[in-house]
Amino acid sequence: MPLKGIFTPTLVPLDEHGDINEAELRRFVSWLIEKGVHGLYPNGSTGEFTRFTPEERRRIVRITCEEARGRVPVLAGAAEANAKETLGACEAYAGMGATAVAIVSPFYFRLSPDSVYAYFAEIARASPIDITLYNIPMFASPIDVPTIRRLAEFPRVVGIKDSSGDLAFMMRMINAVRPSRPDFSFLTGWEAVLAPMLFIGCNGGTNASSNVVPEVTREIYDLCAAGKYGDAMAWQYKLIELFDAMLFPFEFPDGFRAAAELRGFNFGKSRQPATDEQRADRATLKGGLQGLLSGFGVADAPGVVTAARVGHFDRDMISRVISEVMTGLEKRGAF
Amino acid sequence: MPLKGIFTPTLVPLDEHGDINEAELRRFVSWLIEKGVHGLYPNGSTGEFTRFTPEERRRIVRITCEEARGRVPVLAGAAEANAKETLGACEAYAGMGATAVAIVSPFYFRLSPDSVYAYFAEIARASPIDITLYNIPMFASPIDVPTIRRLAEFPRVVGIKDSSGDLAFMMRMINAVRPSRPDFSFLTGWEAVLAPMLFIGCNGGTNASSNVVPEVTREIYDLCAAGKYGDAMAWQYKLIELFDAMLFPFEFPDGFRAAAELRGFNFGKSRQPATDEQRADRATLKGGLQGLLSGFGVADAPGVVTAARVGHFDRDMISRVISEVMTGLEKRGAF
Amino acid sequence: MPLKGIFTPTLVPLDEHGDINEAELRRFVSWLIEKGVHGLYPNGSTGEFTRFTPEERRRIVRITCEEARGRVPVLAGAAEANAKETLGACEAYAGMGATAVAIVSPFYFRLSPDSVYAYFAEIARASPIDITLYNIPMFASPIDVPTIRRLAEFPRVVGIKDSSGDLAFMMRMINAVRPSRPDFSFLTGWEAVLAPMLFIGCNGGTNASSNVVPEVTREIYDLCAAGKYGDAMAWQYKLIELFDAMLFPFEFPDGFRAAAELRGFNFGKSRQPATDEQRADRATLKGGLQGLLSGFGVADAPGVVTAARVGHFDRDMISRVISEVMTGLEKRGAF
Amino acid sequence: MPLKGIFTPTLVPLDEHGDINEAELRRFVSWLIEKGVHGLYPNGSTGEFTRFTPEERRRIVRITCEEARGRVPVLAGAAEANAKETLGACEAYAGMGATAVAIVSPFYFRLSPDSVYAYFAEIARASPIDITLYNIPMFASPIDVPTIRRLAEFPRVVGIKDSSGDLAFMMRMINAVRPSRPDFSFLTGWEAVLAPMLFIGCNGGTNASSNVVPEVTREIYDLCAAGKYGDAMAWQYKLIELFDAMLFPFEFPDGFRAAAELRGFNFGKSRQPATDEQRADRATLKGGLQGLLSGFGVADAPGVVTAARVGHFDRDMISRVISEVMTGLEKRGAF
Repeated sequence: MPLKGIFTPTLVPLDEHGDINEAELRRFVSWLIEKGVHGLYPNGSTGEFTRFTPEERRRIVRITCEEARGRVPVLAGAAEANAKETLGACEAYAGMGATAVAIVSPFYFRLSPDSVYAYFAEIARASPIDITLYNIPMFASPIDVPTIRRLAEFPRVVGIKDSSGDLAFMMRMINAVRPSRPDFSFLTGWEAVLAPMLFIGCNGGTNASSNVVPEVTREIYDLCAAGKYGDAMAWQYKLIELFDAMLFPFEFPDGFRAAAELRGFNFGKSRQPATDEQRADRATLKGGLQGLLSGFGVADAPGVVTAARVGHFDRDMISRVISEVMTGLEKRGAF
Repeated sequence: MPLKGIFTPTLVPLDEHGDINEAELRRFVSWLIEKGVHGLYPNGSTGEFTRFTPEERRRIVRITCEEARGRVPVLAGAAEANAKETLGACEAYAGMGATAVAIVSPFYFRLSPDSVYAYFAEIARASPIDITLYNIPMFASPIDVPTIRRLAEFPRVVGIKDSSGDLAFMMRMINAVRPSRPDFSFLTGWEAVLAPMLFIGCNGGTNASSNVVPEVTREIYDLCAAGKYGDAMAWQYKLIELFDAMLFPFEFPDGFRAAAELRGFNFGKSRQPATDEQRADRATLKGGLQGLLSGFGVADAPGVVTAARVGHFDRDMISRVISEVMTGLEKRGAF
Repeated sequence: MPLKGIFTPTLVPLDEHGDINEAELRRFVSWLIEKGVHGLYPNGSTGEFTRFTPEERRRIVRITCEEARGRVPVLAGAAEANAKETLGACEAYAGMGATAVAIVSPFYFRLSPDSVYAYFAEIARASPIDITLYNIPMFASPIDVPTIRRLAEFPRVVGIKDSSGDLAFMMRMINAVRPSRPDFSFLTGWEAVLAPMLFIGCNGGTNASSNVVPEVTREIYDLCAAGKYGDAMAWQYKLIELFDAMLFPFEFPDGFRAAAELRGFNFGKSRQPATDEQRADRATLKGGLQGLLSGFGVADAPGVVTAARVGHFDRDMISRVISEVMTGLEKRGAF
Repeated sequence: MPLKGIFTPTLVPLDEHGDINEAELRRFVSWLIEKGVHGLYPNGSTGEFTRFTPEERRRIVRITCEEARGRVPVLAGAAEANAKETLGACEAYAGMGATAVAIVSPFYFRLSPDSVYAYFAEIARASPIDITLYNIPMFASPIDVPTIRRLAEFPRVVGIKDSSGDLAFMMRMINAVRPSRPDFSFLTGWEAVLAPMLFIGCNGGTNASSNVVPEVTREIYDLCAAGKYGDAMAWQYKLIELFDAMLFPFEFPDGFRAAAELRGFNFGKSRQPATDEQRADRATLKGGLQGLLSGFGVADAPGVVTAARVGHFDRDMISRVISEVMTGLEKRGAF
């Protein structure tokens, strides 16, 4: 049976010093499970894994596994500096009770398909735990279709999370792998197109937005599973507005952190420093997010002031920002 | 009522000297109509409009309108060297009986959103015929969401054809325009994702593949219109294989010309010169296309030799070519 | 002997209706020659060749050749819709007395190296006039080093103009071609690095800025030819400031048209429509250009008001615009 | 006085298990100093800093400082997972005797200019050691000109290493910063254009090739310092051939490792796994490198067999590979 459903790439609450806020992380993890997410994915991009030390990454997985208590599967991000260190993390996470690990393609250096293959093959041969590949071409070396096909020959490789948002690419992967590996899981990391991805046959998603509106991503999944695509698309058209408003005007994943705070959590000080101007902008943008969350019926305290701000929430401004950021992402090979 | 259905961006048959083969073009246009396409779109990218002179472009539209005889609408590509010349073409095509024109965003120079707006606005104010915008960022200045929204305020602007293949972008456009312009038509030019685009609410497509398998693109449209999405996706998974095999290993649109010849037409000498090696490669690739068309039950004469060739049609080779070309397209701002 | 020196890609003055202003074009051409440019290059990108009809392009070359009266060589841009039409232009320009033609790599469609080769080879075999290739990857299909090397085997191919601004690419071309073709000319179209390009061995340039400050581009050329590189670099550091201020805040080539007007010419109505906001911005920006030209001692009437404006000419704003535009250009494969 | 000269971004020898080979690293460092490099730069991209653990990175700097024994300055790469960890490394390297640190712009996530500024500003305010910024847009968030200008206001920020290879960008930085900070050092990381960069006023370079031919990069520097630009360019045209042959056909920095082995060192097992096909290809390519090094008079044992191999070293193949890889790099925002 392939992995399926919505896995939340968990945000990490920090305290006022920027250290991991363990109590809040435990409370947040339990809240996500109660709201219906199918699984948890610590140490993803949304979890800012590159901004933590190797020791902190292990602590985040340990806390998550402990708090999950087997209620949902844990897919633990295990990417480290090289294949040997990554295998060490695989062993550690197997011992903590993770269901599988997720390993992002090598980053910083941009590797050729053969080198991406060689890297994952070395890990796949020795790992004591199942592996999902993680393709995020805007940040890491791209994994192409022939490479997926070759890696799917390893029994330990059981799925791929793809954050490109490219439906044609997803269909090409499914065409290439599913006939020989019906148990292989295809998960999308780009919830702007979550319902269409489920429509074409994806098994689920690992979506940053599920930190903020876990009810909505769950609802889209359930409606698609029931064949109620029209209802799913109605939610999808609302979700893309929220997603865009969390993604483009902020430095990722600050917009998701800001919106999740509106659900009643304290995410603390970011590990990425900000200028005074950025802090001021974020306060305004957070008002806009509260308005959008109210539209889902999930913002806990919209308030009169916020409603006023929402009136000033300029759709065209957001659209232009989106457009510019998309341009930037495209340049970086995101799509 | 918005424009809807599958409009074929008609390939242009040439003779052995590279001149327009009028008799074959008429025969091809009638065949397309008989096979069920909803409309015709002469002077699109598939029709290689940039490789013809202004006089030849007018002749192609005249022949198409005459041969269509009102059986289906004609959407005439009207892009010329500047706004004044383009308006001249709009007037000419209105006189020939075209239903609307399609105007590609300015190309060669890459313009800012404001300049793209100013260009289309000047045309929209004076055109005697309805206009669909044509967004093809891999070849021309991109049209972004705020620009679409502003241009949709002109009554003469009645739709957009988008060839980016980006579903999230299409959803953003629909979110921005449809509430105030329910008659505005959204057409996709990227049939790799035709069914998903119809699923999210597109009104149709202008798809090069409909020159080759008009029955299949029609079937996908009809199944989606009937809500039979599962059946549509089964065809879609076959269509993407054919599309990829026509698109990536060839110089566009030579793969579509080669495949359409297998349906019984003579497309003659290409206007783009080829090396001897390219000509040899194309012969081999055409064998592969025949095998794929046989799989649709539409290749007229598969033959024993071809069947053998198909055995050598290497999926991974094609996948790798696709991957490399996608990389190239991404670089050029295609996605 | 290779073509050498600074060839001006001539701007085209238009009248208030947007038609070619022949009298002003003649006056401008003569002024450029008097100011010391080594040659003229009508129908380049700076001359907006894509915004004119085929007939207008021929008229521009005829006027230029007539007005030059053999005082300087004319390199005529001859790119048309296809190889056959381009050959027709080559014949026409040979008859008008052009020294050579410049042919841009095929644009709109992005062709593979083999197709770029086949296109130029077909023209090179039949042309009655010498040909320089024109590589401008931000707008047209790139010409790579192996393709240059193969095309340099045709005696009719006598040079390349490259607008990438990439010195390493230029060195690779020179390494590949000069040993077997010492008569082959390498011209740079990116005057941001004109002196460094001459330093590494280029034969000259075709530079939009020579429409505005022909004295300066000539001086840089002469200083480099005399081995006075330090003095050349002092001018180069001033030229890049002017170039950036003409290039990035405007839609190309409007900044060059605005600056050339400050030298005493009337360039009239642009063929690319502008919004009211763009027109207002350009007036302000033109004030900034006047200040920069004053710094070269060539602006004919700086005025008190302008001096005030220059004080408001924000370097960081310009730098940021440059940065954003560079990002956009990179996305489009410019570099 | 600004930092100046050629700083070698030191390769790290490993043993057969992939662990740091301390003895060989010491021998290599001393050899570089004896061959005339002006400084050492451990933990650069060439030193594969991302493939080591935090502890290993500290060990590499400690060994380098110890072995340098004050003979040349050490510029220690100090980038860690976040600002706090990076400051920890700054303190450690100050204690080890490093002259300054080099800090790469944040990578994996691509940050906006404001966030890049905020990141470096937080470090610059607290660092006990001078800092050079490291701009490598193909791998990390780009640092633009206005950001450089703002960061140059911190006394602790004393220079920038730029690996974009873009001369116009370098000139814009120099124009923006040098007037107010004559002590600020501009170093190029792209030795394909080392001599032109020195010609326009750079203070030096940090060049991977100086691991292989330290005599040549030193000679280019000395000739430029003496104003003998013509002689410098003669070496530069040879260096670009070697650089291309080390860079493009290999996964970086394996080509530099292979070539440095030809100078008499054992670099051991790479931390990036390779396929059997890649290993076979590298053996062939290493033969080609030996031929090129013989041309510099520095390969210690060319041999008869190698000479034969060199005959098969296909220039066009290399040029094509370069072209394809450049395309890939461009896509990733390298230029």
